[in-house]
Order: sequence, then C-alpha cells, then structure tokens
Amino acid sequence: MAKKQKPAALPNETAIVPQPADTPAPAKSRRAFMRASGALVGSGALALSAKAASQSAAEATASPPAIPESMKAPGAPVGDKLYGVPSKYEDHVVRNVPKNAKQYISSASRTPLVDLDGIITPSGLFYERHHGGVPVIDPAQHRLMVHGLVKNPMVFTVEEVRRLPSVSRIHFLECSGNPVYTKPYGKTASDLVGLVSCGEWTGVSVKLLLEQAGLQPGARWVLAEGADAAGMTRSIPLDKCLEDALVVYSQNGERLRPEQGYPLRLLVPGFEGNMNVKWLRRLKVMDAPAYTREETAKYTDSLPNGKAREFTFYMEAKSIITSPSGEQRIPGPGFVEIRGIAWSGRGKIRQVDVSVDGGANWAPAALQEPVLTRSLVRFRFPWQWRGEPTVIMSRATDETGYVQPMFEQLIAERGVNSFYHNNAVQPWKIAASGEVTNAHNS
Amino acid sequence: MAKKQKPAALPNETAIVPQPADTPAPAKSRRAFMRASGALVGSGALALSAKAASQSAAEATASPPAIPESMKAPGAPVGDKLYGVPSKYEDHVVRNVPKNAKQYISSASRTPLVDLDGIITPSGLFYERHHGGVPVIDPAQHRLMVHGLVKNPMVFTVEEVRRLPSVSRIHFLECSGNPVYTKPYGKTASDLVGLVSCGEWTGVSVKLLLEQAGLQPGARWVLAEGADAAGMTRSIPLDKCLEDALVVYSQNGERLRPEQGYPLRLLVPGFEGNMNVKWLRRLKVMDAPAYTREETAKYTDSLPNGKAREFTFYMEAKSIITSPSGEQRIPGPGFVEIRGIAWSGRGKIRQVDVSVDGGANWAPAALQEPVLTRSLVRFRFPWQWRGEPTVIMSRATDETGYVQPMFEQLIAERGVNSFYHNNAVQPWKIAASGEVTNAHNS
Repeated sequence: MAKKQKPAALPNETAIVPQPADTPAPAKSRRAFMRASGALVGSGALALSAKAASQSAAEATASPPAIPESMKAPGAPVGDKLYGVPSKYEDHVVRNVPKNAKQYISSASRTPLVDLDGIITPSGLFYERHHGGVPVIDPAQHRLMVHGLVKNPMVFTVEEVRRLPSVSRIHFLECSGNPVYTKPYGKTASDLVGLVSCGEWTGVSVKLLLEQAGLQPGARWVLAEGADAAGMTRSIPLDKCLEDALVVYSQNGERLRPEQGYPLRLLVPGFEGNMNVKWLRRLKVMDAPAYTREETAKYTDSLPNGKAREFTFYMEAKSIITSPSGEQRIPGPGFVEIRGIAWSGRGKIRQVDVSVDGGANWAPAALQEPVLTRSLVRFRFPWQWRGEPTVIMSRATDETGYVQPMFEQLIAERGVNSFYHNNAVQPWKIAASGEVTNAHNS
Repeated sequence: MAKKQKPAALPNETAIVPQPADTPAPAKSRRAFMRASGALVGSGALALSAKAASQSAAEATASPPAIPESMKAPGAPVGDKLYGVPSKYEDHVVRNVPKNAKQYISSASRTPLVDLDGIITPSGLFYERHHGGVPVIDPAQHRLMVHGLVKNPMVFTVEEVRRLPSVSRIHFLECSGNPVYTKPYGKTASDLVGLVSCGEWTGVSVKLLLEQAGLQPGARWVLAEGADAAGMTRSIPLDKCLEDALVVYSQNGERLRPEQGYPLRLLVPGFEGNMNVKWLRRLKVMDAPAYTREETAKYTDSLPNGKAREFTFYMEAKSIITSPSGEQRIPGPGFVEIRGIAWSGRGKIRQVDVSVDGGANWAPAALQEPVLTRSLVRFRFPWQWRGEPTVIMSRATDETGYVQPMFEQLIAERGVNSFYHNNAVQPWKIAASGEVTNAHNS
C-alpha cells in the first residue's frame, strides 16, 4: 500500500505571486519594475509554453497606471460579428489533426485539452472521428425512422423530434482508441487522450421514441444507422436505450455542429464514441446484434489467448494531468497547480489521486463541483516543486469503486495485441530543467 | 390563493407523434405517406416558425428507406475546419442587434433565446453590452493592478493570473435593463430578456488576489476598472468580492471572447452585468464606493417619492417561457411542451410555476438537473392546448423564498419612473389561431 503524501501548502501560506512594489511603478520606471517581478515569476510558477514565458517577461506598454491604447479610442461596434469568434491571439487553439495521414475522410481530430479549462468543451473544438467525411444535410429533408420489432413503425421529421418532451444533460464523449493501446505514445495530452470532449446535450429520450412505436416481444437490441457515406451502423443493447440514451439535436445550447451529427445524433452516455451514431436516420429494433463491421472487425479487444471480447461498450474510469503535461515546461522550482480531467462511463467520479513521486505516494486531489454522471470532472492538486526530476500521474476512482489501472495491469490482463480501450494511468516525466515528457517514451 | 391545476398528460398517455404507416413507405409512395404524417403534425404540435413549418411539410428526398445523397459520396475531410462553425442551415441563429440605433459603440446585442436549448449559452451567441466598443487587447501586454488599501500593491501578467489556483463555475450574467422597465415591450423573448446568458467560467478567486495583496484596516469596497475606451468603473462591496467573485480568463472551456472581456474580466455572480467589468485592468481597494457615473447617473432605480435607491446589485429571481413565445405560432390544438428558463442572483431556483389560464391557476413545472447556484435552470411543462385563446406565463421562486412579482406589483412598489431591474412575470397571449404575442402589447 502506497503511503499518503501531504498536498503542498496552499498559496496563502507561501509566496507564489510577484513581490509587490511599495507603490505602483510610475511609467518611467516600469521597465525596472517588470524585470523584477518577471524574475520572481520565473522562479515560482509554470510557464505554459516557451512563447508564453517570453511574452510574460516582455515589457508591457499597458501596465497600470499607464493608459493602454485600448482606452484611447472606441473599439469595434456591437454587431460587428453577429456570431462571435475567439480573439486573434488565440488562433493557435484549434483541433489537433494527425499530420501526414494518407487521407482524412476516415480520420480524427483531437481536442486541444491543454489549452482548455472547465468541463465544457467548446463546440468548435470538440473532438471528431468520421468514417466517411462530414455530410451536408438539410434538416428539412432529413428523416428518422423507427422500425423493426415495433408495433407501429414511424418516420419523424426533425421538427417533430424537437416538439417531443426534451431532456438536457452534460455528458462526455470519448473515442475507444483514446489513446490506442500500443506504443509509441503521443507527446502531448491532446495527442494521447484528445479524443474526449464534454458538452451539454439536448434531445429526446430513446425510451420515449420506442414507447411511441411500441416494442414487440423479443426486442433486445437497437441498430442505429447514420446518413453519412460510411453508413455507420452499430448495435446498442435495448436496456441501455431504455436507461439513458437520447436522440440529440443540440450541443452546448445550439444545434449540433455538422461534425457532431447535424441534425440528429444518437447519444449513448458512457459508451464508446462510435456507438453515438451521428447523422442518425434509423433505429431498428432487433432480437440480436447485427454484427456490423464496426462491432466485429473493429472496436473489439483482442485477448492473450487469441480470442477477442465480443463487445466492450463502456468507457472505464480514466484521468489525465493536462498541466503540467507533455511539451510544457515548469520554469523553475516553486508553486505549481497540477490540473487535469477525469471521467467514467460507469457514472460519477468519486476520487482522483495524484502522485508526484512516480507512484510511490498518492494523495487525493480536489474535485471541482459539479461532479455529474458520465461527465468530465476537473481536479486540482497544489504542489511545491523543488526542482528534482520526478514523475507525476493521476488515478481516477469512480462511484462503482473501479480504480484506473496502471498500463502494466492492462497488459497483464489483456496481452499486447489489443488496440482499443486503453484507460491506463498516464505518467509525465519532469526533468530537472522543468521539461515535461511522456514517461512511456523514455 | 390560486387553485392548483393538473399538468397535461405525459406523452406516453396521449398521441403526440405522427401516426405510423403499417410498414415503412416504399420510395414510390413516399409522397403520400409524408402528406399523411404532415397533417397529423400540424394538428398536434408546435411549429417553431412559419419557415420551419413549411420545411416540415415538404416532401423529403431523404426519407428512409430511400438513400439520401449524403450517403452516396464522402463528405468533407477531417480538419477542413480546425475550429468548427454551425451548419449553414443555422446561419439565421445570430445575436439580436437593435435596428436603427444611432450608434453601436455603446449598445447591446441579445442572445437568441428562442433558438437555444439547455443552460449553456454558446460563446458566439452570448449577449453583449459595451460602452466604448470592443477593444483589441494583446494578452502579453495586458496587466492587472491590485492596489489601494492593501499592504502590498501588485501587478499581475495574464500568465501569472493563470498560474494561481483556479476555480470553474457555471453562472448566468444579466444586464440590469433586461427588459427595461417601461413600455412598449419587445415582441420576442429575445427582445425582452435576451440580455441574459449563462456559461462556465474559469479564473481565480478575488479573495485570493486580495489575500496576496493583504487588506488594510478600513477596506470596504473594491473599484474595478476596464481597459476599454469607456474606462468602465464600478464599485463592488468587499464582502461580495470575498464571498464568490472571480477574475476569469475562460468561458465555456476556452479563453474569453473579445466581447466578453478578453483577456481578463471580473465575475460577480448574481450582480447586475455592468459590475462584471470586462477587460479588467485594476482592482482598487477603498473605504467607500467611488460613486462613478455608472453607479450614480445610471444603473439606479427611481422610486415614487422622487428619490432613487442608492444601489441595486442583485438580479432578483426571474423566468420566461421561451416556447411557445412571441412571434411563434402553435399550429393547432394538441400537445405542447412549454419550455423556458429561470434564474436568480440570490442563489438556486427552488420552483417555477406555470399558468396556462392567465394567472388564475398555477402548477409546478419540472426543473432540469443540475440546478446550480446563480445559473440558468431550464423548466418544462406538458400542456394539451385545446385551441382556446388564453395567456400563459411562468413564475420563479428562489431558495430564499422570493417569488417573481407581477408587473403590477413592481409598479406599486417602485412607481413608473424606473428603468432597470424589471423582473416581472412575462405573459404571452395565445390567439385561437395559435399566434403568440406579448400580452403587455395588446
């Protein structure tokens, strides 16, 4: 059993911010003042990137009490952009697309986790994985058919779905290959687990749709089909459909983005992303799984004995430290807030433990409220880094008591031929220089 | 005391969706099938707009089992847009800007509430109110000064603020003139109360900043100054700053949009929007309010005796039905899900009651979880409209027991010369034709 370690002193017990000047620096001596405070920043806190660090040290022309240019003339008028976009200074915060892929029709782009805060992923940065590209669908033309083992087959327009009693919930979505099981691993948190995002979804419960259609005896599974060129089809257990699945039309308040399945998508909370069929056009109630390509040749886990698990639907508990993480640098010894995200397809996260000594000792991190079912939760852990080389990592426990495994435990259970469903603890190596790298790559 | 009314039967007790065909319509007879189902839709549910209603009735070329064009050729590749945008079919969902204003430098744009679902407002559609336009601020140049009645005046870079212990919370923001107190009222829900939005904010607690600076005896107020051309300044009670105020840098996961105060903004949960100073550059601790223009000539409430209240900071409990609402039309008698939003600057919403008979009877609506402090909450109320002309309205009660007043109650207390802080119940008139209008305008 690992020993308990004590979290670092909270910031009000220790100096973590620039030392004050006795009075605000007058404009003339601003340069000297900023140099002084910059030195303390460098020794006491985390620069998120080399670029940010150099900006941080630069002399500012806007430092109070000097009057910045932005106060000297009016800015852009209201209505200049009727649909807002981020600042031009944030134009590097985009989805992370694999370089040098042979094609991008069946491919993925990752959420830039390191640049994000909170639990809501902006819709423009939500991860994507498509198998036949992103279709353009006119919602006035789109239809959803409910058929198969039902008493009353039905066809719904999008407007008809939207008129039904509605439900909104915050849930994560995650690709089952996040990260893939095999080495080499990616360099950044986004490379590794950027195929997870979280949003507020609004739609209608699948249970209501199936009740309207009327289930026939023998109904056990529901086949979902997308209206994309891949004709994506997956079989969902009926029990899950009746428990909490939704047909959603909105994400983070507005209609689904095209990349997220506009105008309708299936949401199967906690199940692997691929089952959350986008551009949903058909729900067919069946007595058995359809054994489609995406649930037989793909998305199954090989075992050491040469067999494969038939299905692995739930995304098990996982966590990752996003700051400090791969390709970041801690500029010097001092206070560091270790930050990250955790989630579980089985329900709520109960606890996240953090180790700052390679797994010898663990201590619980603070979880940010609200802690919701099948949602990202953010954790934080205050740490005083003393400049020693070390390895830091996080480990999630969900409300079922399941504990996120070390990679060695996954290998022991599943062998080395798996590809999907890697939820192992992610260790980050910190060098004496403050450089952070993926400990699996060293 | 108003009598209790019974909510309408839930949809699984009544026919609210298109009647089924016995079997899916073959491609040849699709036209006849869709006409039949369209007729039932028209008599049973709410068309959100005339345009949507005509789309809904149009013949679909994509109706299953026909194969839509989107399945016949690959769609757009991954990475086509590294920062996603809404579908072209949603390009009418934009902020609502007042027409024919003399200028837009000191103006507002409203959230299109009727088009949104859930409680998270997409950042691109978050309401705006600026007094000197939207400045362009380089975060590397921006500084936040904490000074006045503190032991150690300090200047922070944005990166230094981001390194401090962080907090994420979901809170609404609302302009105090939402709607203005005087007639004539707007036509749509957005015209009336579109100056409210809700997001997940991440930043650092003002309490921590003040603790680092060290408060001097006599500290009672904090003056906040923005780096815009209006030099917006407001005085915030110190107690509120120590309770739950934040200096935020992120909204809905990503950095603040320029219109929301990039790179730093003050968030004073539950207080009128104007106090949540954007482009924040200065927090000055004082022994008394500064009595700036925006807290004396503006943002105060006149009373019948000719005096004015000194300050009205809290936004009191409010709610509005967004569907069906002004300029929508119920296409015919049948099931309608009455939907809306509620919020209170004092804390959590405890209950929302709905009346469908002009206020004679009220019944509680269902509140969508999670119900968070100083956050929007969504309510729903199932209703069978029988085609009679009527007036519908909602009434929020918050956890302090405060009940949203009727407009007549506000007038009785405050007279007719007020302008801000109108949180009255909003009645919608429904004609026999299904047309919905603002009952205050008739």
